[in-house]
Amino acid sequence: MNESLVASADEGLIRLRATLAYDGKDFRGWGSQPDQRTVQDTVEQAIAQVLRLPKVTVQCAGRTDAGVHARGQVIHFDIPAPMPHEPADLAYKFNSILPEDVAFQEIQETTSDFDARFAATSRSYIYLIYQGAPNPLLRFHAHRCWQPLDIDLMHEASQLLLGLHDFASFCRKRDGSTTIRTLHQFDWSRTKDGLIRADVTADAFCHSMVRGLVGAVLAVGEGKRTKDWLVDYLEGRERSTGLFIAPALGLTLDKVDYPEPAKYAHRITQTLRMRDLDGPY
Amino acid sequence: MNESLVASADEGLIRLRATLAYDGKDFRGWGSQPDQRTVQDTVEQAIAQVLRLPKVTVQCAGRTDAGVHARGQVIHFDIPAPMPHEPADLAYKFNSILPEDVAFQEIQETTSDFDARFAATSRSYIYLIYQGAPNPLLRFHAHRCWQPLDIDLMHEASQLLLGLHDFASFCRKRDGSTTIRTLHQFDWSRTKDGLIRADVTADAFCHSMVRGLVGAVLAVGEGKRTKDWLVDYLEGRERSTGLFIAPALGLTLDKVDYPEPAKYAHRITQTLRMRDLDGPY
Repeated sequence: MNESLVASADEGLIRLRATLAYDGKDFRGWGSQPDQRTVQDTVEQAIAQVLRLPKVTVQCAGRTDAGVHARGQVIHFDIPAPMPHEPADLAYKFNSILPEDVAFQEIQETTSDFDARFAATSRSYIYLIYQGAPNPLLRFHAHRCWQPLDIDLMHEASQLLLGLHDFASFCRKRDGSTTIRTLHQFDWSRTKDGLIRADVTADAFCHSMVRGLVGAVLAVGEGKRTKDWLVDYLEGRERSTGLFIAPALGLTLDKVDYPEPAKYAHRITQTLRMRDLDGPY
Repeated sequence: MNESLVASADEGLIRLRATLAYDGKDFRGWGSQPDQRTVQDTVEQAIAQVLRLPKVTVQCAGRTDAGVHARGQVIHFDIPAPMPHEPADLAYKFNSILPEDVAFQEIQETTSDFDARFAATSRSYIYLIYQGAPNPLLRFHAHRCWQPLDIDLMHEASQLLLGLHDFASFCRKRDGSTTIRTLHQFDWSRTKDGLIRADVTADAFCHSMVRGLVGAVLAVGEGKRTKDWLVDYLEGRERSTGLFIAPALGLTLDKVDYPEPAKYAHRITQTLRMRDLDGPY
């Protein structure tokens, strides 16, 4: 059974749910790694330091890769009761010792059956692209694409990937993990500022799946591939070394959705039944 | 007479007009300074290196302060005839040796009477503000304001500053320079992303004028000052040490306007007659 689910049974603990924003540029991704600067380690250390705890473990909704940003990453963690400060004061205290590239946006007390990872019903990412001359003001948040792009065609192609599929051909494979996911939304549009934007939502994503999807659709938009190729590639369920993985810096975890609190436990059971334990981020 | 105007008389030279974008964070502003990293020095060195010239002098439309960004800075400079490459290839060559925080957006050949500084009819800046928790993704491009702001009131107050005035109370004074300017636009709005945005356009700006204007209107928006105070402060023509100068990182030089080519010479004469030589940026 998952550690965080075990911890939730302890009545001396309070479970907190929080939203984080971070600039992924100088992090080696979310997940804790020895001798690397990661979001998880940075946040866990700040919480432990403020609350004078020996160790805190934070569970996130979306394990972002190195370089990927977040505006609405959701986490949960447990602290000893009683609540030491008002949630807003706690956020302020954490932010005052965190480095400038990661910050709590909000903290709230939640019930012990909330789980940032397993209770989530969907994750939404945004991918930004721009064209033309190199733009120093966008260089850390949008991918520059040289080739002319047919945005309408990219949007049409993306719709062919919606629904429940085995997305193995877009993911970095992990042994024992399923790559079956439900893609809810994959829309392309132009922003008012002239950027090209993809909105990608699924129940959960496998490793590097958003960037693989974006890379494949870019190949269609550039005219190198067709819509038929995209469908065949999905159905082939084999990742090709030729697949373009769109760069991490263009990607931002925008938000995570959850059911109403009364349905947390049901959603967790559903998630664990549908997928292996390592899968659903 | 201005150096660049003298240079333009030389028939062995080609005058180039270019647009630059830069991330101001790691520059000590536009203007060349000994032992400081400035946009001017960085760009002049890149041009000289690519064209194997001993020295190139670049004239800009808006001398941005340390930390201020640009999306549409306009410059001119002269190179020996004949044109060594197509303008687009030249931009590519400059960008390939420039650091990532400054880039040519476009280059074109222009007439010898074009002057990026003196022929400009207006400069447009954008100032961005956000509220709420610290946002790591905005920290280098928008100023975080703690206080609640009345945006409608700020917009109304800003309209009182439009027109021809002596803006001495908003500027850092330089001996022998006039501080009389015409403010064309000073609008406040909310962006789709929840940011607060000021659009500020004038024929030209004095040193730190945009940031002084934004700071004064913020004091009104926070309820610390009234619209009457703002008008009295403008009319007092004395800069107060109490004036809040909005931080440089929120400010971006968005674009510079010029008359049609046949009117360059006329506009330059007009600018030089209206203002002292040190004034009009």
